Amino acid sequence: MTHAFDAAVATRPGDGGSVAAVHPGWGNMVGPFGGITAATVAAEIARHAEATGRLAALTVNFLAPLGDGEWELDARPARTNRSNQHWIVTASQGGSAVLTATAVTAADREAWERTEAEMPAVPDPQSVAPARIPFPLPWLEHYEMRFVSGPVPLAPSEVGGDSESVLWLRHIDPRPWDAPGIVAASDAFFPRVFRRLGPQVPAGTVTLTTYVHATAAELASEDAFVLLRATASRYSRGMFDQRGEVWGRGGALLATTHQLVYFKAPRT
Amino acid sequence: MTHAFDAAVATRPGDGGSVAAVHPGWGNMVGPFGGITAATVAAEIARHAEATGRLAALTVNFLAPLGDGEWELDARPARTNRSNQHWIVTASQGGSAVLTATAVTAADREAWERTEAEMPAVPDPQSVAPARIPFPLPWLEHYEMRFVSGPVPLAPSEVGGDSESVLWLRHIDPRPWDAPGIVAASDAFFPRVFRRLGPQVPAGTVTLTTYVHATAAELASEDAFVLLRATASRYSRGMFDQRGEVWGRGGALLATTHQLVYFKAPRT
Repeated sequence: MTHAFDAAVATRPGDGGSVAAVHPGWGNMVGPFGGITAATVAAEIARHAEATGRLAALTVNFLAPLGDGEWELDARPARTNRSNQHWIVTASQGGSAVLTATAVTAADREAWERTEAEMPAVPDPQSVAPARIPFPLPWLEHYEMRFVSGPVPLAPSEVGGDSESVLWLRHIDPRPWDAPGIVAASDAFFPRVFRRLGPQVPAGTVTLTTYVHATAAELASEDAFVLLRATASRYSRGMFDQRGEVWGRGGALLATTHQLVYFKAPRT
Repeated sequence: MTHAFDAAVATRPGDGGSVAAVHPGWGNMVGPFGGITAATVAAEIARHAEATGRLAALTVNFLAPLGDGEWELDARPARTNRSNQHWIVTASQGGSAVLTATAVTAADREAWERTEAEMPAVPDPQSVAPARIPFPLPWLEHYEMRFVSGPVPLAPSEVGGDSESVLWLRHIDPRPWDAPGIVAASDAFFPRVFRRLGPQVPAGTVTLTTYVHATAAELASEDAFVLLRATASRYSRGMFDQRGEVWGRGGALLATTHQLVYFKAPRT
């Protein structure tokens, strides 16, 4: 049986591109979970006949919320070099542009290796309780989140003095990690503004960039649980940046990510 | 007289787009300084007849080094919303694709404001000596860099145990800050791998994303000196990420940036 994730990122051939369909099982506040849309782009590139290498960088711009039903996406290699390949992706729904994206795939070259970022010191996922987030958002049903710190504040008293969250995350229905899966995980942080002002604040990702540092083999050998850490640098003029890391259980930095988020909250 | 920066980011109308020219005064190791190329994209969007709002996010993908001479760029609004506008940019030289980019411009909305990132505690720029970087790279002539920490290692003994640099930067020939200027500044960190292995390592930006948090008015009122801080998270398979911040002298976080860099160095 097809995993719910793979069902959601599937496409079929269309006229001059591919046809995707918004999966009702992955709904978010407005339209589908952005992570599954970004994962669809990553998966579309991976299965393209001309694709070489593994996903190294992906930027997805969310031009408008996707409505129910089908949407068209067109992924094209813009240039193929010896050690990398550049992609450009456009998507539309009902004739209106809804998404643009660029990506870099790369050959795995042997080179000097180091990790400088430090994995947060955290308890084992088994010793952290799974979160119960009582929001009627279908996409949340696909992940188990165990917050080490910075949970979604469900009462005003739980609102924090900063935006950081650290959590263990796994697919409820097990699925090996791959680039589309990590891309989706890199957007699985709730909007940082919720930490500061509560989850009633309207917010949505405008643009998401994820760098995948791990090879395909490294991802496939990872444990079911990955550790996510997210912060914000500045809230300014109705937007903020959200910076994140995705860590393997054994301490490998699988991905780093950066997104710009729109939000509405009165000046205080 | 036109400032050297503005001369370098200028374009003229061409067939179905604009024509830019590689400015010999901004040369880097291979082709021009990537920051001036990214700034050309930012400037091209800002002067587009259909542009609304200020630059909030820019991703530039460097598909191939630019050679001497002219290149063609085509910036098009992909969608205009009430509070933001999405851009898609492609560029070619001699018929080959050399660059893709996407950008978001945004209206300045009143909203809740906070800065969570902390500006490094640093001495005043006047009490830090200007660096003398003895590389024959024309673009370096346009900036004064005063390293608080993490200078370019010019001897093996100066190579560091981490990739961090903190420096004051200003235009040698004064120029008020604007979005193109900040985009260029966000790429003015030398490649982080130099800190670890020395400046002989071949390295080049593959993709650069910059989020500009400051309004146009805020940028224009900034001091000549901005503070740059850059780190790396992981060196893996011949690529590393470079994360940076651009701070105003008074403590405003003007921009955050993230890039993926290609490098060649043997595994040790």
